[in-house]
Amino acid sequence: MFTDAAGNLLDGSVLLKELFDAEPGQRPEIATRLKAVEHAGDDATHAIFRALNTSFITPFDRDDIAQLAGQLDDVLDAMEAAADLSVLYQIQELPSGVDAQIAILHQASELTVDAMPRLATLQNLDSYWITINDLENQADQVYRSLLADLFNNGTEPLRLFKIKEVVDQLEEAADAFEHVANVIQSIAAKES
Amino acid sequence: MFTDAAGNLLDGSVLLKELFDAEPGQRPEIATRLKAVEHAGDDATHAIFRALNTSFITPFDRDDIAQLAGQLDDVLDAMEAAADLSVLYQIQELPSGVDAQIAILHQASELTVDAMPRLATLQNLDSYWITINDLENQADQVYRSLLADLFNNGTEPLRLFKIKEVVDQLEEAADAFEHVANVIQSIAAKES
Amino acid sequence: MFTDAAGNLLDGSVLLKELFDAEPGQRPEIATRLKAVEHAGDDATHAIFRALNTSFITPFDRDDIAQLAGQLDDVLDAMEAAADLSVLYQIQELPSGVDAQIAILHQASELTVDAMPRLATLQNLDSYWITINDLENQADQVYRSLLADLFNNGTEPLRLFKIKEVVDQLEEAADAFEHVANVIQSIAAKES
Repeated sequence: MFTDAAGNLLDGSVLLKELFDAEPGQRPEIATRLKAVEHAGDDATHAIFRALNTSFITPFDRDDIAQLAGQLDDVLDAMEAAADLSVLYQIQELPSGVDAQIAILHQASELTVDAMPRLATLQNLDSYWITINDLENQADQVYRSLLADLFNNGTEPLRLFKIKEVVDQLEEAADAFEHVANVIQSIAAKES
Repeated sequence: MFTDAAGNLLDGSVLLKELFDAEPGQRPEIATRLKAVEHAGDDATHAIFRALNTSFITPFDRDDIAQLAGQLDDVLDAMEAAADLSVLYQIQELPSGVDAQIAILHQASELTVDAMPRLATLQNLDSYWITINDLENQADQVYRSLLADLFNNGTEPLRLFKIKEVVDQLEEAADAFEHVANVIQSIAAKES
Repeated sequence: MFTDAAGNLLDGSVLLKELFDAEPGQRPEIATRLKAVEHAGDDATHAIFRALNTSFITPFDRDDIAQLAGQLDDVLDAMEAAADLSVLYQIQELPSGVDAQIAILHQASELTVDAMPRLATLQNLDSYWITINDLENQADQVYRSLLADLFNNGTEPLRLFKIKEVVDQLEEAADAFEHVANVIQSIAAKES
């Protein structure tokens, strides 16, 4: 179930890249597809909660499973928000740092998809956690220098704040991947 | 205790509506009453923590109770912040989407008050969780189109950002209701 | 281990004060030193996670320990972000309310350092929790009146938003201290 949920994140990060590479006119249609992935994610979360409510046996705390499902959901919510806001605000051109943000999200999605099956054996989760933390630090640096450029380059205030809303959501998605990794680390700590 | 705490949220949402319907001159007095409700909420949270520290027996994890108390507190904090900022920033006129945000908060408060006694029996909590999640999705849509209108209608930047601060807190309150529902869902999952 | 981690927060709050008291030209060097403290904090967090993954016995839930380590990390992240952004945005002059924010962070750091050894005996943690909550309420008031001044005094929008980014991170650090106190309160509740 969690490998499926993480698969939605990977689909989401691929669509994000497609959206920001596309002509503005094509973006609404891609944002709609990303919204469908987010709905699939909501359904996956809800299926996990329903399964927890029935009598099935879990190898981990029900609590941890609920938390992990919620955190995976947060990643996809932030990705979808970034896409949706870029369409709603009719932003034509995004600064180049956005490409770097999306590349990091894509890498974090792949690492998370890879880590999920390892929850069964609790092997090699430490290296996953360290790499996600490194990626989150990189994301912070990209985010801040992107904002510093915007603020120091005399961007027109309204345009700046539209872009900032989108860029903030991408930064939130990177933070949310770290929260996912922290829950997994905490599960591994308890089970070891 | 939790039904009382949820009752504070309902009082808060009623005062929020009163405040945003009132003339600007009357708002400081209503904001003061909302701050009193927030203090009552802080006292309720603290009473729950104190009770946990004494030897009384709880039907649930102490941990979950502490988390639920904290999340209920977050809802009221965000409501009070919205009221307080609207007064501090001397905002005269709020966009019409704010009414829709407050109507959603009121509905979420009523659902939460209704759900609290059902924690004792763990009945019908699934439908509560689904409805709160639907409301949170609606809140997201209202929030984003409200911002898109503000950003695309040539609102003067400083006025836009004052309004955005208030509207952000209302959105945070809607998110916080979802966090409350997630903790309750997680309690129900563990106890079932 | 936690007393060491809290000691990093105290070092961080001292460097923050030094940075905002310094001439703008000296700030990059102080921000670099704060970044080194943050890296020491990351290492401390990781050492705690690694220790949890080995077979050593803990007096508390592994889960609570992981959460506490994460929350302490969040405080230092926010402090470091405030310092880094003030340098990146080349802010020359900060409003006077920033001094009050930093004084509160310093006080919260001292209280947290003092509280850590008391986790062993669970004595006097209630007064720590109450005082941190009071400080967080004060921080909210300082933050909001600082913003109200900026917004109502006709500050130029771009300058306003650079300052707001820094001030937001200082507010986030104060919130993060409250989250630390909530986890400690929850540990005390479970163990009592």
